[in-house]
Amino acid sequence: MDAHAIRFMDHALALARKGTGLASPNPMVGCVIVREGQIVGEGFHQYEWRDHAEIVALKSAGDKTRGATLYVTLEPCNHTGRTGPCTEAIIAAGVQRVVAAMDDPNPANSGRGFERLRAASIDVFTGVCEEEARRLNETFACWIRTKKPFVTLKSAMTLDGQLALPQSGKKKGKDSGKRDNWITSEESRAQVHRMRHASDALLTGIGTILTDDPLLTDRSGLPRRKRLLRTVLDSKLGLSPRSRIVKTSDDDLLVFTTLPVNSPKARKLQDAGVEVIHARTKNGRMDLSSVLADLGRREILSVLLEAGPLLNGAALAAGIVHKLFLFYAPKIAGANRVPFALAPNLSLPRLTIVRTQQFGPDFATEAYFEDVDKK
Amino acid sequence: MDAHAIRFMDHALALARKGTGLASPNPMVGCVIVREGQIVGEGFHQYEWRDHAEIVALKSAGDKTRGATLYVTLEPCNHTGRTGPCTEAIIAAGVQRVVAAMDDPNPANSGRGFERLRAASIDVFTGVCEEEARRLNETFACWIRTKKPFVTLKSAMTLDGQLALPQSGKKKGKDSGKRDNWITSEESRAQVHRMRHASDALLTGIGTILTDDPLLTDRSGLPRRKRLLRTVLDSKLGLSPRSRIVKTSDDDLLVFTTLPVNSPKARKLQDAGVEVIHARTKNGRMDLSSVLADLGRREILSVLLEAGPLLNGAALAAGIVHKLFLFYAPKIAGANRVPFALAPNLSLPRLTIVRTQQFGPDFATEAYFEDVDKK
Repeated sequence: MDAHAIRFMDHALALARKGTGLASPNPMVGCVIVREGQIVGEGFHQYEWRDHAEIVALKSAGDKTRGATLYVTLEPCNHTGRTGPCTEAIIAAGVQRVVAAMDDPNPANSGRGFERLRAASIDVFTGVCEEEARRLNETFACWIRTKKPFVTLKSAMTLDGQLALPQSGKKKGKDSGKRDNWITSEESRAQVHRMRHASDALLTGIGTILTDDPLLTDRSGLPRRKRLLRTVLDSKLGLSPRSRIVKTSDDDLLVFTTLPVNSPKARKLQDAGVEVIHARTKNGRMDLSSVLADLGRREILSVLLEAGPLLNGAALAAGIVHKLFLFYAPKIAGANRVPFALAPNLSLPRLTIVRTQQFGPDFATEAYFEDVDKK
Repeated sequence: MDAHAIRFMDHALALARKGTGLASPNPMVGCVIVREGQIVGEGFHQYEWRDHAEIVALKSAGDKTRGATLYVTLEPCNHTGRTGPCTEAIIAAGVQRVVAAMDDPNPANSGRGFERLRAASIDVFTGVCEEEARRLNETFACWIRTKKPFVTLKSAMTLDGQLALPQSGKKKGKDSGKRDNWITSEESRAQVHRMRHASDALLTGIGTILTDDPLLTDRSGLPRRKRLLRTVLDSKLGLSPRSRIVKTSDDDLLVFTTLPVNSPKARKLQDAGVEVIHARTKNGRMDLSSVLADLGRREILSVLLEAGPLLNGAALAAGIVHKLFLFYAPKIAGANRVPFALAPNLSLPRLTIVRTQQFGPDFATEAYFEDVDKK
């Protein structure tokens, strides 16, 4: 592909990104229509029931589609789902060439759209900016294939891997894990809110609630179609109805427990507006895989795991984590205090670092586990 | 300054870097002479007793120096030291303009060279690529001001700040810290050897020797004028004459101890070719500051600290560390195993991250402590 194709696809990817916080449970898709080197139409997919990106772009191009090249970040659909098939609209518009970034990650549809276009004598090229396009819809691809959400484990630590700094002059003991100071900077925390904005659900453990009493809301200020679903794993229902997360609940708080959902503790939370779900156990512990399956059934494509050492460790050990997003602040704890993860005899798949970025005084590294989807 | 000035100074800095492993205890200096937009002479300072960079460049320019601009990474000297003053040679050569990256970091000389040049009606500009030039000679600047070496603490860890991974199926207990696998990649280890090449001395603790039995040599393959001085802190002289570091010693191994240098253990090491030095104690522990003062007297400008949790912690607590160079491998220990540093109630000066870089599958972050020199 030439430099122009990459430039137009970059533009289509930028359009697709406008669907962040909106498109789920659909993929984010952007489309650009080009005739004689000029963009004559463009669009992105906002959310279900709205037009697909291709249709938006075709409509915006009006009568200029004949003989044009259509750049799209994902293979056009060939099935009548919530909207009509995009392939037929593209064919009807007289588009001459379709350049796609990637095929449909849904195995049931993959390649079908391209086949239909080729059968109508349209030139089809695919794989332009493919890696970027795959990243953009990695959560959709995971969910459509596995019916479970893509899990990003986010954590913020000192350079020596501790979630908390020693506190001078405070009482030591059971409560010494309480963090009254942020480890990372405002810039890093703003990025965390952008990550929450891009996620369908947030997952944490009761330990984090008891330690920090956090809100765990999306305070990015960016538009989102559905509320961020706040999810707490709380085997013994230690969650207090007076915690900030419960007090701010508004049909956006799920608690998974191993207790019966009609237990007195569960009733109290239900009365406070919390949905309490009984989770399966596996080897005496909550089965994280069944929790994710439940979230997947709720059309949760992406989960941001923000937890403490125990749940981080359990999630890693259970193999449910796809990606790490780790912030490091320029600080040193100088002691084994609150480690990033506690998981004895952890044996992990290979991890690949794809990027490190600065956020104010901090930096963050992004890494993927290999072959998590195949588990 | 214009883009040309930056380009010529970049070239002078690249020349200066050729002095890595050679110039110490002098600064690394590069010089470029430009006339009518063309480089007519260049040079760098190799090592003491050899010509300064300016002299090398002037000689290489021959009769083309008249009316030329001289770019130099450090203020030209105005004193007769091991070589004659460069200022007089520059004046005699008819140079019209001198562009410097920084002033002489030696407070006794700073500004004197520029004054002399200006008195001879030469135009003097300074501060071009200053930050890069200061970094290049940060070890010299530290040593010339404080008489103690600049200390870079290098460490290699998991993403969760552990120096070792759990070993499955091996005996646990006192020896479980033994690392028979490298945490980081070949690319990271090659960088460590380049860092050793750029250092005058390496500093470690007896714990690391007992755990890893390392060589701690510079295996970069790059030329160096003086051997890397391998230095071990070993209060009770637990170092075995059969360790690899002792067996390979060749006038390049110093051991600091709090025992008398005529003790039987010290004698044994001396017989094996090791220099044993009695170190002062402070609060019952070896005084790291006096160790550095001793190294400074030996014209050691730069120390690479490669140690375990105890010495890392002690060095951080003592405030002798100027810079951190931390490698992170895409691995997770999942347990508090061998932490980066053990230093209870560590209170550190502000730390600034200046760079993160990839090394194969790993990344490394570089950070500076503020105001360490003022201690």
